[in-house]
Amino acid sequence: MIRVAVDAMGGDRAPQAEIDGVLQALESPPNDFLVQLVGRTDAIEKELARHPGTDRGRLEIHEAADVIGMAEKPLAAVRKKPKSSLVIGLGLQKSGKSDAFVSAGNTGAALAASTVLLGLHEGVDRATVATLFPTGGEPVLVLDGGANVDCSARELVGFAYLGTIYMRDLMGRANPVVGLLNIGEEEEKGTALVREAHQLLKRAPRINYAGNIEGRDILPGPQQRIPVDVVVCDGFVGNIVLKFYESSARVFVQLLKERIPDAFDRPAMDDLNRILDYSTYGGAPLLGIRGVSIICHGSSSPNAIKNAVRVAVQAVRASLSQHIAAEFARREAARA
Amino acid sequence: MIRVAVDAMGGDRAPQAEIDGVLQALESPPNDFLVQLVGRTDAIEKELARHPGTDRGRLEIHEAADVIGMAEKPLAAVRKKPKSSLVIGLGLQKSGKSDAFVSAGNTGAALAASTVLLGLHEGVDRATVATLFPTGGEPVLVLDGGANVDCSARELVGFAYLGTIYMRDLMGRANPVVGLLNIGEEEEKGTALVREAHQLLKRAPRINYAGNIEGRDILPGPQQRIPVDVVVCDGFVGNIVLKFYESSARVFVQLLKERIPDAFDRPAMDDLNRILDYSTYGGAPLLGIRGVSIICHGSSSPNAIKNAVRVAVQAVRASLSQHIAAEFARREAARA
Repeated sequence: MIRVAVDAMGGDRAPQAEIDGVLQALESPPNDFLVQLVGRTDAIEKELARHPGTDRGRLEIHEAADVIGMAEKPLAAVRKKPKSSLVIGLGLQKSGKSDAFVSAGNTGAALAASTVLLGLHEGVDRATVATLFPTGGEPVLVLDGGANVDCSARELVGFAYLGTIYMRDLMGRANPVVGLLNIGEEEEKGTALVREAHQLLKRAPRINYAGNIEGRDILPGPQQRIPVDVVVCDGFVGNIVLKFYESSARVFVQLLKERIPDAFDRPAMDDLNRILDYSTYGGAPLLGIRGVSIICHGSSSPNAIKNAVRVAVQAVRASLSQHIAAEFARREAARA
Repeated sequence: MIRVAVDAMGGDRAPQAEIDGVLQALESPPNDFLVQLVGRTDAIEKELARHPGTDRGRLEIHEAADVIGMAEKPLAAVRKKPKSSLVIGLGLQKSGKSDAFVSAGNTGAALAASTVLLGLHEGVDRATVATLFPTGGEPVLVLDGGANVDCSARELVGFAYLGTIYMRDLMGRANPVVGLLNIGEEEEKGTALVREAHQLLKRAPRINYAGNIEGRDILPGPQQRIPVDVVVCDGFVGNIVLKFYESSARVFVQLLKERIPDAFDRPAMDDLNRILDYSTYGGAPLLGIRGVSIICHGSSSPNAIKNAVRVAVQAVRASLSQHIAAEFARREAARA
């Protein structure tokens, strides 16, 4: 039985969104996992009481008296609050009592706590936030999504490996195509950083590298020159593109609402909204850590939490962390 | 009479798109300008012959035997091809025989030729490509759009001034709000470059600085925290966001077509397409040069060329270049 610890107190709508999402996850197949709700037992029980008849067979509660707030300084908060839901939830995984962790709390704190408590695989310099971009068809993975603002070329290459393994293990892509986000396809384009990364990626073994790609190549569509599964960029660019995409989708929906009001009464529009709804993918996995940790938006809906729990289960089932460890050990061995 | 030179040979669909666009521009008011078509006279005449009855009263032809191709190295091509439409067109402005230049040709070459032939205003380090993002309402100016990949903090501050003057002169915004594109609003967020630029912008006189903004703040909408008129970023980030926006709008329209086929028969959808059509704004002005030079997409439609000509006329009429010169002279004087 796969054990997924869920930070019940982290999100903006905690514990309601978290518990609603967890119950939805438990109700849908497969049922090879249990959830460990981490937080104030009284608050969790009070919320669970709103769902009478809940089967507690695959649900545990782990007491955590404290919460790390959204505005707290990540590392300091992690150190100061050993009884926080974040530290206790990840502590379960560290001590072998849990297999994965999901939180919609303070992203920086979740990143710091995951790195400090679980540690990084050998050869990984920093944990990476990988974000799935919804599209009309299959999602595209963009990394880093904001955890690593200043990257070395070597780190960008590391992202290519992390993204490749993720898309293979969790999205079933046999040989994911990797693109390096740049401002032109030619070798001499871009900053010194991406030019160096391009040279390294060209000769990186076991990476299906398509070369430099442009902003227009991220999403599938008529404008795309090369279809890619994984987009590599530093966390500054990745975070800006990610947040811009979210907002432009909303702006577009808003424009449509104003101009074709009745379109929104249609199932097709629901479908479209769903496609562009980040909650479909539930959360961003932290890659590179020894274990499984999924970071969700602070404003996560129950659906987002549900899907994050499912991603966590899939990551454990697919041995994602073990595959990352093996790949980076192989790279380290080749360097030695 | 304002004189606008148009590179008739530069674009992917030259000279047809250029000449169609120019004729459309000449037909719509105001009529205080004339167009100087620059290119191979025979090719231009052949194209004009397709429009019998054209009034030549505000139309000149200036022979240029050569063309700079899209794939040519910018600076080398400018030096090697003195008879190119680009060099001759800008030469007219340099020698006082023209007031503005429009080209849908090789962007790098247009940038290089504008800088070399017209020169930069004192205090300006490099010319900047300013791109207007279409939105449901008023457009937002993002700069740099790709001309300056590696920027100093001082250059980012320069973009804030250039963008402010542009939005005041051409978009009628009395006191444009400037945002610095970053990955969070807090002072300590981002790269060393943007942190330094943020400190400089906070105390920059005559700039209505709103602080750090995120990717979600670029476009107006429910997700926007601070409404901005001008978004400052380096050309690497700006170019990626620009191309990504173009493509995401297309992807969105594609998704809609698949799901609500009849929506595209409606005037509302045309309206929406138009809003998100880059050609509405026609071209990206090069800011910082001594003069007026507008760069268009290689794939520009006649409508895009028409609007680029209008932007050029407006820039001359509003004394944009003179206002930029005055502002940068004032900054230089304050530094001395």
